[in-house]
Amino acid sequence: MRRRLRYGMVGGGEGAFIGAVHRHAMALDHRYTLSAGALSSTPEKAVRSAEALGLLSDRSYGTWEQMLEGELKRPEGERIDLVVIVTPNHVHFPVAKAFAEAGIHVVSDKPLVHTAAQAAELERIVQERGIVFGVTYNYTGYPLVKEMRRLVQDGRIGVVRKVVVGYHQGWLAEKLEDTGAKQAEWRTDPERSGVAGAMGDIGSHAENLVATVTGLELEAVCADLTTFVPGRRLDDDGNLLLRFRGGAKGVMIASQVEIGHENDLVLQVYGETGSLRWHQENPNELWHAPLDEPVRLLRRGNAYLCPEAAACTRIPSGHPEGYLEAFANVYGEIAAAIGRHAEGGDPSGDYPGVAEGARGVRFIETAVVSAASAEKWTPFPSTP
Amino acid sequence: MRRRLRYGMVGGGEGAFIGAVHRHAMALDHRYTLSAGALSSTPEKAVRSAEALGLLSDRSYGTWEQMLEGELKRPEGERIDLVVIVTPNHVHFPVAKAFAEAGIHVVSDKPLVHTAAQAAELERIVQERGIVFGVTYNYTGYPLVKEMRRLVQDGRIGVVRKVVVGYHQGWLAEKLEDTGAKQAEWRTDPERSGVAGAMGDIGSHAENLVATVTGLELEAVCADLTTFVPGRRLDDDGNLLLRFRGGAKGVMIASQVEIGHENDLVLQVYGETGSLRWHQENPNELWHAPLDEPVRLLRRGNAYLCPEAAACTRIPSGHPEGYLEAFANVYGEIAAAIGRHAEGGDPSGDYPGVAEGARGVRFIETAVVSAASAEKWTPFPSTP
Amino acid sequence: MRRRLRYGMVGGGEGAFIGAVHRHAMALDHRYTLSAGALSSTPEKAVRSAEALGLLSDRSYGTWEQMLEGELKRPEGERIDLVVIVTPNHVHFPVAKAFAEAGIHVVSDKPLVHTAAQAAELERIVQERGIVFGVTYNYTGYPLVKEMRRLVQDGRIGVVRKVVVGYHQGWLAEKLEDTGAKQAEWRTDPERSGVAGAMGDIGSHAENLVATVTGLELEAVCADLTTFVPGRRLDDDGNLLLRFRGGAKGVMIASQVEIGHENDLVLQVYGETGSLRWHQENPNELWHAPLDEPVRLLRRGNAYLCPEAAACTRIPSGHPEGYLEAFANVYGEIAAAIGRHAEGGDPSGDYPGVAEGARGVRFIETAVVSAASAEKWTPFPSTP
Amino acid sequence: MRRRLRYGMVGGGEGAFIGAVHRHAMALDHRYTLSAGALSSTPEKAVRSAEALGLLSDRSYGTWEQMLEGELKRPEGERIDLVVIVTPNHVHFPVAKAFAEAGIHVVSDKPLVHTAAQAAELERIVQERGIVFGVTYNYTGYPLVKEMRRLVQDGRIGVVRKVVVGYHQGWLAEKLEDTGAKQAEWRTDPERSGVAGAMGDIGSHAENLVATVTGLELEAVCADLTTFVPGRRLDDDGNLLLRFRGGAKGVMIASQVEIGHENDLVLQVYGETGSLRWHQENPNELWHAPLDEPVRLLRRGNAYLCPEAAACTRIPSGHPEGYLEAFANVYGEIAAAIGRHAEGGDPSGDYPGVAEGARGVRFIETAVVSAASAEKWTPFPSTP
Repeated sequence: MRRRLRYGMVGGGEGAFIGAVHRHAMALDHRYTLSAGALSSTPEKAVRSAEALGLLSDRSYGTWEQMLEGELKRPEGERIDLVVIVTPNHVHFPVAKAFAEAGIHVVSDKPLVHTAAQAAELERIVQERGIVFGVTYNYTGYPLVKEMRRLVQDGRIGVVRKVVVGYHQGWLAEKLEDTGAKQAEWRTDPERSGVAGAMGDIGSHAENLVATVTGLELEAVCADLTTFVPGRRLDDDGNLLLRFRGGAKGVMIASQVEIGHENDLVLQVYGETGSLRWHQENPNELWHAPLDEPVRLLRRGNAYLCPEAAACTRIPSGHPEGYLEAFANVYGEIAAAIGRHAEGGDPSGDYPGVAEGARGVRFIETAVVSAASAEKWTPFPSTP
Repeated sequence: MRRRLRYGMVGGGEGAFIGAVHRHAMALDHRYTLSAGALSSTPEKAVRSAEALGLLSDRSYGTWEQMLEGELKRPEGERIDLVVIVTPNHVHFPVAKAFAEAGIHVVSDKPLVHTAAQAAELERIVQERGIVFGVTYNYTGYPLVKEMRRLVQDGRIGVVRKVVVGYHQGWLAEKLEDTGAKQAEWRTDPERSGVAGAMGDIGSHAENLVATVTGLELEAVCADLTTFVPGRRLDDDGNLLLRFRGGAKGVMIASQVEIGHENDLVLQVYGETGSLRWHQENPNELWHAPLDEPVRLLRRGNAYLCPEAAACTRIPSGHPEGYLEAFANVYGEIAAAIGRHAEGGDPSGDYPGVAEGARGVRFIETAVVSAASAEKWTPFPSTP
Repeated sequence: MRRRLRYGMVGGGEGAFIGAVHRHAMALDHRYTLSAGALSSTPEKAVRSAEALGLLSDRSYGTWEQMLEGELKRPEGERIDLVVIVTPNHVHFPVAKAFAEAGIHVVSDKPLVHTAAQAAELERIVQERGIVFGVTYNYTGYPLVKEMRRLVQDGRIGVVRKVVVGYHQGWLAEKLEDTGAKQAEWRTDPERSGVAGAMGDIGSHAENLVATVTGLELEAVCADLTTFVPGRRLDDDGNLLLRFRGGAKGVMIASQVEIGHENDLVLQVYGETGSLRWHQENPNELWHAPLDEPVRLLRRGNAYLCPEAAACTRIPSGHPEGYLEAFANVYGEIAAAIGRHAEGGDPSGDYPGVAEGARGVRFIETAVVSAASAEKWTPFPSTP
Repeated sequence: MRRRLRYGMVGGGEGAFIGAVHRHAMALDHRYTLSAGALSSTPEKAVRSAEALGLLSDRSYGTWEQMLEGELKRPEGERIDLVVIVTPNHVHFPVAKAFAEAGIHVVSDKPLVHTAAQAAELERIVQERGIVFGVTYNYTGYPLVKEMRRLVQDGRIGVVRKVVVGYHQGWLAEKLEDTGAKQAEWRTDPERSGVAGAMGDIGSHAENLVATVTGLELEAVCADLTTFVPGRRLDDDGNLLLRFRGGAKGVMIASQVEIGHENDLVLQVYGETGSLRWHQENPNELWHAPLDEPVRLLRRGNAYLCPEAAACTRIPSGHPEGYLEAFANVYGEIAAAIGRHAEGGDPSGDYPGVAEGARGVRFIETAVVSAASAEKWTPFPSTP
């Protein structure tokens, strides 16, 4: 039997949202065990959270620094294999840096860090240390996203001409951050969230999904970012025109004030001989329109899908899989990479890594620069 | 019984598409009779077409100039009440001008004319002569578009923040104009179509729909127009960022190379307290998402709809109405306006008129200017 | 130019519903002219209705008997070509019989008559006189219904195993007939509607659609008919198990108390190697599921459809056609048949005729008998 | 921290399907640990499966009898808390009986057993021993199924008149059992599956869903069961008319030969003032149609839902939850019941228990009897 990987979690205590998602997803396939945690910056919360999660008290740490120190003191076979960072964005960088430098594998939520410079520094460290570093762009874990990528790669829609991606939410249509809603508070606070609001929180997902599926490289962006809710300090709506190397065009919408949408991430890719459409809220379906033929509805779990899509499916077609399963798929690839690393192999794999995380940070920065510019097109830096 | 209005048609003979649509739509409610025609610039086609449509031979004219002359010679009670122009775009202006100057009501297909200057001239003539002048932005004729407009006007979604409109087609993804397809030929030919391709043909519909439903006035546009099909002479794909007076934002996509879409005109309007969504391919449904409540699906023909929506419905709910019925609704309003005019009343009404047509031409021009500009925002001229 | 056919209408005056539908549909393609009418059994209504419709006063008759007499007195080239019967059901038989016997073509709304014996008599007369006799099972006029029939006939889903058909309405969930609603009144009145309520009004449509598309012949039915609304005199809900000759099975639901449905006619056909699904409220789409392959979405107006589906389409794909167009297609086939008849040809054609009408009457009777029976299966009489 | 419950699994080794589903679902919320297993009747498979799952070798048993014996020998605090039975149907009874008699909690897959007599015996034992006995009718675990039940109970659609339930699959449209497909083999084998095929495998789910949501009690059924695939030994298609106490009616379809459907479980409930619709393949949506008002689309995770629906949701709205989460919800209620039992409390709870399992067995038997009967209605025995 495979040994379960031991992870330490930073953040994710009482009142948090995404920490529990990571834990559910990691539990699903029996490959990870929560072994340590610095679950909250508030000591009582940290203790209560650790207890609720069954952490041994000597591995419930008050701070991530203590966790790093404590774990490094343990014999090599007993310390955590990886750290999972699920804090607000501003904490990602110092934690990721410290654990990576200590040679501990890292999984960080997105967006990776606040600045492209920080991201570049992390890339360098990861390169030097040869560790596994995952960034949870979780939507790439859906089987039909993998199918979509495969269909593009196999030329099934011809050369890609155009991409339309939307990440539509409506939950910040009111000033929720004034009502005590923790998720709204930090996401609209530049200190904790970074230079962008909606663009950082969900635009970065959209950017990653486009790049993953199409392999297209951004050349320039023309952004219009708006803060619709009075008094809010970051953008809550963003609309972008995109240009890719080689001539493809794109449109991106990332909004948190579009009432009626919940988590409506939609990707449409148009090629010379067909098109594809996938919708996160209905993730078990993929639409493929070949030129001059009836549209085809591909569904998860069927024998006609590609091996990558088949490999990350747990249950037969018709039994819906969802968000947690996709998240778990990303963690499955990370676990496999850690396994290969343990045997001296290549830590890369089919998961979003530090390079993708860094590219996402450059994207956010470029969008913000473009929005403030009178020039129509702001070049996208392919390297920092 | 109401007298049926007599119309003369310019264009719409053999091989045409939109002429037959106008005739079907005008027949539906028994308010119009085809009485004269200059149906084709090719004499034999004109004769054959007239015969097929049951035109008397003395009212089948070789040219529109002859039709104008011939009709004016007839006693006032026996000549055509209106001319219907369904030619390629470049013919709209001279015909509309001549008939309007002669005091004959005009219905022209869209886009109205090639230049804003021509449009302004038509506006002036219509003003002077006091005639009815309709432009067949037919999508405004759908009952649920009227409902959508009413809901916005009544504040049911609060102040409008954002509009996303898409007009997605895929039929020009290949170089159809080289295969003898007449519709593709003239639509991609600047001589006949004007300064824009997709933007003129369908972007203008999108512009009109947004303005009709929301009442918002454009302030500036930032356009990216592309010709994807090699050798094509006009844009076949356009993506625009929009700014409206008062602070609302928008995104418009108008494309004819998005394979998998047929005539996918979708309008989404986001306000401070709700949103609305309507889709031309499923026109009997309207989605209304009030803040924090379940989304509501409004369906044509139900008692809960507004009087304007009820007034232009012919059959009970659940029996789908479509494109021709919406087209017929525009013609119904025009017939009513001609009726009022005949009794000395106001020729205006709930139909798209010369002002809307002129605004559409300015929109096309502005989009083209913006696309060629390095400046992000091109101001939209509210008057020529 | 084709001469327009002259029709006389019985019923369809003020307050009626289906008469106007027939007139709109007949107007659409310019092949019919309303020339005479006995539009209402109430004299003032008849006069007002005739005036509103532009009937000449000498051809607006007080009764259908007077219309028959009056028209027969006219020279042959000036009398009506056909009578269109759009009254409540109980009037169908005498009118149809009288006009058919006089050699005038007949179009009758469905269900054809009250009893199988009446239907058999009409069949005999039609046979003897060699006239065109149409029954407006209008749903068979949809292009994608013709496509569905073609796919079954061509073996694209293999031998048919099972049919599931539902005609779901909710408008009679309350006792609407007590509120003065004329449509509800006669439909729930056995004197005017016949032996069945929902089963006669919409179950008969479902029966016809199944037979038209699949060609299957009923062998036996097992019906459960219910009157849910207290005090109502006819069934408002029916659920049936079906057996067809050759071994295929079926389920039929025809209800008028299923709140939330408007006119939800859905047909699903399952064969040995695939299945098909069509939905009247979204009539421009047809789903085809081939065994072990992605589901295909066929859409009206595309080049991949069969000639019969292409022949009855007026506008390009993506521009929705609806109920009136389908209705008009039935009338188009009837006009063609009358044309052939006029030239001594065969009056049959691709329209529902007296035989289909008679089969529908037998179906209604059998369902009623089965519902009252303790036996599970009631044989379906293939002839009266 | 709550102690994790220790479970022993019978079945679910290599090549099995549903065992892994149970394990994933039990892992999701960190409340269960796999502690023992008799995973396969083939010794080598049992060993390999146990190893793959990380079972200690002294708790990987060759047979369930050995597991029972072995576990009972362990000190009370160290033995399994519950047994989970995921074998083909014919094994359910002896295992459930033996463990229940030993006072060990039981979770069994459905259908519970082969005969109503066996089911009654289990009911008696469970009653006597006071244990928790769950039957994994997993679809009742979906949050929106709980919402649907609440809306019915609260009278939001009035008195229920009619239920239409369909469980549509197509995977057995061919003779898959001859190709070595293990799932198809035992499901079509009367020795292992019981007296019914599709009716037992999925009809029983449909019965349970109807009863859970509506609380209606069956009075009589009229079934038509068919074996479409030549040579198959059990029904692969079933269509039923239903009568409930109090006058409500129903229709059930349970088929495994309807190509194009994967796991299409759809429930529609029609009341006097509204209706509800839920679809397992899109489980995050619930449609509510109030009389004369727009249809409402309720979506999982929103504040407007009832507490029961809120309580079994892990992630925010818009992030799809699926089959495993619903399954895990059933296990969550079972864990809570075991917790209450441990403290001397009531072992009942909001999970399907032995009574529901027994009712399901009676339903299958009644359907089979009805199908073989010439009588239209076969009474449903409310007790064995």
